[in-house]
Amino acid sequence: MGPAAGGGERELVSRIAAALGRAPAGELWAGDDGAVITTSNPCLLAIDTVVENVDFDLSYCSGADIGWKALAANVSDIAAMGGRPSHAVVSVSLRRDVGIEWVDDFVSGLGRAAERWSVGVAGGDLGAGSEISVTIAIVGALEDAPVLRSGAHEGDVLCVTGSLGGARAGLVALRAGARERDAAHERLALRQLRPQARVEEGAALARAGATSMVDLSDGLAVDLGHLVEASGLGCEVKLGDVPVDPLIYEAPDLGIDPTDTAVIGGEDFELLVTIAPGDLAAASEDLAGLAQLTRIGTVGGTERRIGDRALDEWRRRGWQHLQER
Amino acid sequence: MGPAAGGGERELVSRIAAALGRAPAGELWAGDDGAVITTSNPCLLAIDTVVENVDFDLSYCSGADIGWKALAANVSDIAAMGGRPSHAVVSVSLRRDVGIEWVDDFVSGLGRAAERWSVGVAGGDLGAGSEISVTIAIVGALEDAPVLRSGAHEGDVLCVTGSLGGARAGLVALRAGARERDAAHERLALRQLRPQARVEEGAALARAGATSMVDLSDGLAVDLGHLVEASGLGCEVKLGDVPVDPLIYEAPDLGIDPTDTAVIGGEDFELLVTIAPGDLAAASEDLAGLAQLTRIGTVGGTERRIGDRALDEWRRRGWQHLQER
Repeated sequence: MGPAAGGGERELVSRIAAALGRAPAGELWAGDDGAVITTSNPCLLAIDTVVENVDFDLSYCSGADIGWKALAANVSDIAAMGGRPSHAVVSVSLRRDVGIEWVDDFVSGLGRAAERWSVGVAGGDLGAGSEISVTIAIVGALEDAPVLRSGAHEGDVLCVTGSLGGARAGLVALRAGARERDAAHERLALRQLRPQARVEEGAALARAGATSMVDLSDGLAVDLGHLVEASGLGCEVKLGDVPVDPLIYEAPDLGIDPTDTAVIGGEDFELLVTIAPGDLAAASEDLAGLAQLTRIGTVGGTERRIGDRALDEWRRRGWQHLQER
Repeated sequence: MGPAAGGGERELVSRIAAALGRAPAGELWAGDDGAVITTSNPCLLAIDTVVENVDFDLSYCSGADIGWKALAANVSDIAAMGGRPSHAVVSVSLRRDVGIEWVDDFVSGLGRAAERWSVGVAGGDLGAGSEISVTIAIVGALEDAPVLRSGAHEGDVLCVTGSLGGARAGLVALRAGARERDAAHERLALRQLRPQARVEEGAALARAGATSMVDLSDGLAVDLGHLVEASGLGCEVKLGDVPVDPLIYEAPDLGIDPTDTAVIGGEDFELLVTIAPGDLAAASEDLAGLAQLTRIGTVGGTERRIGDRALDEWRRRGWQHLQER
């Protein structure tokens, strides 16, 4: 009988609720049919699921890793619209052979991520399944109008925060069992297992006049495709300007192509943003101390290219890559 | 390659978004990292998952049935707090052998339920898994203070809307393949497959002064347990006053005990409510034309009983019953 059984589920849910903090005055979190929450109006709402053996694999990640990353990925969706996450609700399906230790570990990772990004975990649902599946729905507050994927203008510059490819390289390192071998592998593994969402950066970019924004969950090629399609524009990315995660160069034994990995590897949760050329200097300055903002190209024109290849060619490889994860 | 594959996922998500309606001015639904929505502030937030072979079985239910019921169950959580559902986001994991016809059928049932309860399906997520799993997060608007499980007072009367046991009896009929045999079986099957959420009733009860409320998703015994524990009170239910679904008496061949089924069978999504004795007549009147409100007992005292047995005994049977579903 797994933890999701009858009275046991209730006890476990209470235990989880206790671990995740208390509602402020005027709110009500776990313990009723739903939570009562206060955020902005309008607000942001997103949902995302990760499934065992599709999105993660217990051979290389712990319950805490999964709890952290599931919330980080959701927080990143809110960040990509210039919002701030306020509340999340979490639904977990567990195999009946998963023990309470795993659940406690999951809750600890979830709780640390919730603390990191000031998210109130306001409720949840626990049930049984034949695989572990975690779905998080997240609510975010808006200070101003949201930054959409569709707002880019002809001639805007295209920038990314941070560096790319580290999460994919970390997955390769983990699968090769390379994590223990040296510091670069270990740090790459953390890029995969403990991604950072760019909340402050997204808010700063929104204030600095970002015209469109998307988070890099599926990789630069695929997510740039979303942005230019939503905005109805062409694009031109300089391949040599794409900021490759420097850790990848410290792990040549992984046998991966750094630039390719930066363009099609997903899950870095960096922000891809367009901004008017005249606003770029101020935006970079606003981001100082938070993240490097790198100009990688422009949007507009009639073609869509990354380096000397068509964006669609890169996207096909990106999709294939997501399938093969 | 299933529908969740790469570019295919995007196309399918667009197709689903198109089927589910458009955002009103000032809102943004599918197509970005998250949805922009407007509701009340504070608002209600709940999440619920249903998993194949745990909560449903494709041998007796269609995609449309699952889409309807998954949303109805979430709407019911909002109704049980006296709120009105405003928006939902839906995450679906699909086996790779599930075809597009099944998805279209699911979306049609989801869409009909969304229309029935005026819920904007504002976004979603589609991915792969080894079993079908549907998670819905729902946002609800509040006109007044929410009605909690914990608000019952000593001496309040305990009432339920509608009648109980039909959903469980419907499951028995479906599993016995009895659906086609006669009209009573067919109508019981619909109790299981197409439950109604009591939104108008919940709002009317909130206005009429309901002191506490919970929806009957896990059955009267288990959900009454939640209410009296949250309120810290005893209870006394008259077994003979529990309104048994009259359809159960029309299907004696199913071999189920009507009263037992009404007390421990779940998924009727009726409302269990406490109210001051002096407010009962007006509440019943306010509900006229919506649902029968039946007084089944009182809360208070030092014991917790249903008929001549302890509530805990019923609850144990209820939990066991949920496990064996």
